Amino acid sequence: MASSSRGTSRILRTRADMSAVRRSFGSLCSVGFVPTMGALHQGHLHLMERARRENDILVVSIFVNPKQFGPHEDFDKYPRDLENDAKLVVEKGVDFIFAPGVADMYTPSHRCYVVPEGFEHFAEGKSRPGHFKGVATIVTKLFGIVQPTKAYFGQKDAMQCVLMRRLVEDLNLPPAIVVCDTVREKDGLAMSSRNAYLSQHERSAAPVVYKSLRAAEQAFCNSETSISAAELQQIVRDILAREELIHTVEYVSVARKDTMEELEDIVQPNEGAVISLAIKETARRRHLLASCSRLPGGRAGGGRASCYGTA
Amino acid sequence: MASSSRGTSRILRTRADMSAVRRSFGSLCSVGFVPTMGALHQGHLHLMERARRENDILVVSIFVNPKQFGPHEDFDKYPRDLENDAKLVVEKGVDFIFAPGVADMYTPSHRCYVVPEGFEHFAEGKSRPGHFKGVATIVTKLFGIVQPTKAYFGQKDAMQCVLMRRLVEDLNLPPAIVVCDTVREKDGLAMSSRNAYLSQHERSAAPVVYKSLRAAEQAFCNSETSISAAELQQIVRDILAREELIHTVEYVSVARKDTMEELEDIVQPNEGAVISLAIKETARRRHLLASCSRLPGGRAGGGRASCYGTA
Repeated sequence: MASSSRGTSRILRTRADMSAVRRSFGSLCSVGFVPTMGALHQGHLHLMERARRENDILVVSIFVNPKQFGPHEDFDKYPRDLENDAKLVVEKGVDFIFAPGVADMYTPSHRCYVVPEGFEHFAEGKSRPGHFKGVATIVTKLFGIVQPTKAYFGQKDAMQCVLMRRLVEDLNLPPAIVVCDTVREKDGLAMSSRNAYLSQHERSAAPVVYKSLRAAEQAFCNSETSISAAELQQIVRDILAREELIHTVEYVSVARKDTMEELEDIVQPNEGAVISLAIKETARRRHLLASCSRLPGGRAGGGRASCYGTA
Repeated sequence: MASSSRGTSRILRTRADMSAVRRSFGSLCSVGFVPTMGALHQGHLHLMERARRENDILVVSIFVNPKQFGPHEDFDKYPRDLENDAKLVVEKGVDFIFAPGVADMYTPSHRCYVVPEGFEHFAEGKSRPGHFKGVATIVTKLFGIVQPTKAYFGQKDAMQCVLMRRLVEDLNLPPAIVVCDTVREKDGLAMSSRNAYLSQHERSAAPVVYKSLRAAEQAFCNSETSISAAELQQIVRDILAREELIHTVEYVSVARKDTMEELEDIVQPNEGAVISLAIKETARRRHLLASCSRLPGGRAGGGRASCYGTA
């Protein structure tokens, strides 16, 4: 069944409208879903292109989810431009933009949250208390409303991708999770809505992140004996240390790919790992998150650095 | 579409089997679902009768969920008799019994739980830490696997019914929640799998619970001025105090019907409340939970005591 609505993207502003539209499809056509917080960039559009190819109906959500921002994070100033976003998605053949209001998504008597236990103790979860609980909750809600066949996420947010796979496996949610390669600027900086925050000065330091992760990847792939998590972390830290623009390295994490628990010993070649890090370029501002995920097969199959970006 | 399988109930022992069967139905037929922990009694069978009338396909799950039992609760000795349960449900026209194993439902890397915040601070939640988190998680999982159109619960477990409504509203889960009247023994004791634990002596004290709740209901319905939560609690406690077989009154709760938060002032006639209590009949054993839920409309519309039982 081909979509009948190419050339227009209908904007649905309430849960009730989205649910009614979803019910009208039934289960005979496939529904692709790209959840976003708007401020769309090439990374998002790449997800939509793939979702468009693989599904009869394509739904994109645009919702800046307050529950995944900490009290001192950028919820208020997070870039919002629905008009421009709508123009971009029309070109990608998106059928429906689901852009609900906060009061519609979270009623005063809302009490149930999805908590990914352990995620708050590691890497980005430790730096952003409540963030992954907020992400898991909103994605569960969106899956319930949109009822997609497949949902698409960018590998850039490596820990989020791990969480999405845990979420559907642990709660037995119906959608299939599709993780797509990161889309990068020419110098390797991953596309991100938050890149807009970078000054020219700060932007110039960004490539070191990718460089550090690539070095760890190479070491993992080339080592003839086993390599430890500590050794990989040190390789990353050594390269970051050469960049004067970096004020603080908040964490460098080498973690299990299924739970994000820190690896403390050898990284098994057939299991791989997720390497992630966050740095501050000034004492005040935290804005680089970089992640590097490895495929199973490790050295033999060829690991790959698959994501880095700003957060 | 009528079910084609009356007269047999197919037992599905894995998630994979249940999912495959569910996919084969698509969205054109309605699926009724009765989640249970087995040890079926008339209360369960009553839910199945209603679900059978209202749906094309009827699925009953039998799964003693370890995550909703505390470390000192009765997980190990909870009554299990799949063979007898299967006989009972065949007579009710159940199409599928979903009876998965614990290892199939909870893998070693399971991390995501559904947490109903606040529920641990009130009434039964306070007495059973983690219980409602376990209930919310398993029901979310079962909804994901079975994908029912409607799910049926007994009013006996009043706080659980409040949770089920919160769960589907907060996480936007697709099923409709149907709450059915409690089925009672002749003397008013609600049917419950755990009634089997009661000695003859203990059983003889049970009616006082219903009596105390009925008295509170009457007071609420008959009062010409507003009545407070404290007054209702006192009415319940006064009647319980007359029964010598009661060792301890663990709690008497008068709570909001949408969140189970304790009411501290007047019970609004148009909002009603949930009254629930737990008592111990011996110092060692806790086994009576009783709940009384009110309908909106209060005195004018006629409140009703709708549930009590053992837990």
